[in-house]
Amino acid sequence: MRQSADFSLYLVTDSSRCTMMPLEDTVGAAVRGGVTMVQLREKKMETRKFVELARQLRALLAPLEIPLIINDRVDIALAVRADGVHVGQTDMRVQDVRALVGGDAIVGITVETLEQIEEANALDIDYIGISPVFSTPSIPRDVTPWQISGVQKARNMTSLPIVGFEGITTANAAEVIAAGADGVAVVSAICGALSPKDAAEELRKAAFV
Amino acid sequence: MRQSADFSLYLVTDSSRCTMMPLEDTVGAAVRGGVTMVQLREKKMETRKFVELARQLRALLAPLEIPLIINDRVDIALAVRADGVHVGQTDMRVQDVRALVGGDAIVGITVETLEQIEEANALDIDYIGISPVFSTPSIPRDVTPWQISGVQKARNMTSLPIVGFEGITTANAAEVIAAGADGVAVVSAICGALSPKDAAEELRKAAFV
Repeated sequence: MRQSADFSLYLVTDSSRCTMMPLEDTVGAAVRGGVTMVQLREKKMETRKFVELARQLRALLAPLEIPLIINDRVDIALAVRADGVHVGQTDMRVQDVRALVGGDAIVGITVETLEQIEEANALDIDYIGISPVFSTPSIPRDVTPWQISGVQKARNMTSLPIVGFEGITTANAAEVIAAGADGVAVVSAICGALSPKDAAEELRKAAFV
Repeated sequence: MRQSADFSLYLVTDSSRCTMMPLEDTVGAAVRGGVTMVQLREKKMETRKFVELARQLRALLAPLEIPLIINDRVDIALAVRADGVHVGQTDMRVQDVRALVGGDAIVGITVETLEQIEEANALDIDYIGISPVFSTPSIPRDVTPWQISGVQKARNMTSLPIVGFEGITTANAAEVIAAGADGVAVVSAICGALSPKDAAEELRKAAFV
């Protein structure tokens, strides 16, 4: 799985932001629309429910060979045999994560600065998540977005796959890819759509013309 | 470690309730006063900080052969090689925990009802935490405390070691032990004391006369 990971259309699910329908339904529809990877991100859910939800998504995605990535919680990833873990700068260190999940798992990290890209280059990771690419209402005001120019700078600094996070829509996805990102990650653009399948299809078409 | 676990004076640390001094200092003093087991419980701490704190406590406790138990977060326990995991009824299921931590780890579960003791008897666990023994300001009003009579009932229902949680003080610890508990767990009675060492010594004397 690690060799062939396809980061091109990366869905991040968060039940607080995916309220249109049951999360499994959103994910199932999004995958039919062309999502290539799914990250389950739950910052407040009780562990037992989190395990159950992760296990449901694992059962849905594994037969389709779509990797399931768990945000932050290595224990959840291990319990449900997810394909990988995504960590931020205040989550478990990559060295600790890798020691727990083994060499075959997909491990990604969020980077917010050029300095963090340099650090990431020295880590045993599979991709970096550039975040936030654009400002959104869910991003604190004191965080400076990468913008397209930042994606280009990041591209020149690393040979790791780059996924752009936050603020990606059909209107700007092509620019993000053109700037050097390997993929785009979305939450609301799919979770907030009446048809997650159509939304995924439209994002894919818009990003990869 | 699993065979010889001593549950008699069980300190639960929670940085939101252990504010008198740095947590390591509280734990170090408490252990000198006779604490036999330490549970690190953090419900809101960022994962990276949680790992660091757990690793500090591990470094402090391992040479003293005092088990370090991590509440809920199996990933933290695995990352720092803690001695065990304690789970509540909304945390990861014991079957999943045991599969991740292996047979040598100490695994405990909180039980709130007699029915949960029956369930616990069928699980691969090392002790049950009866909670709350008494009502305290941190326990929701709709939760019925076990009281001394409940500890006696629990004792008659299980051969597992029983640890009483919540509301234990020097004034009632002896009764809890006399009712059949193998140990008493405290947070504030030690964390809130000016001298955690003296507090632990006094609890030990009071409980095991």
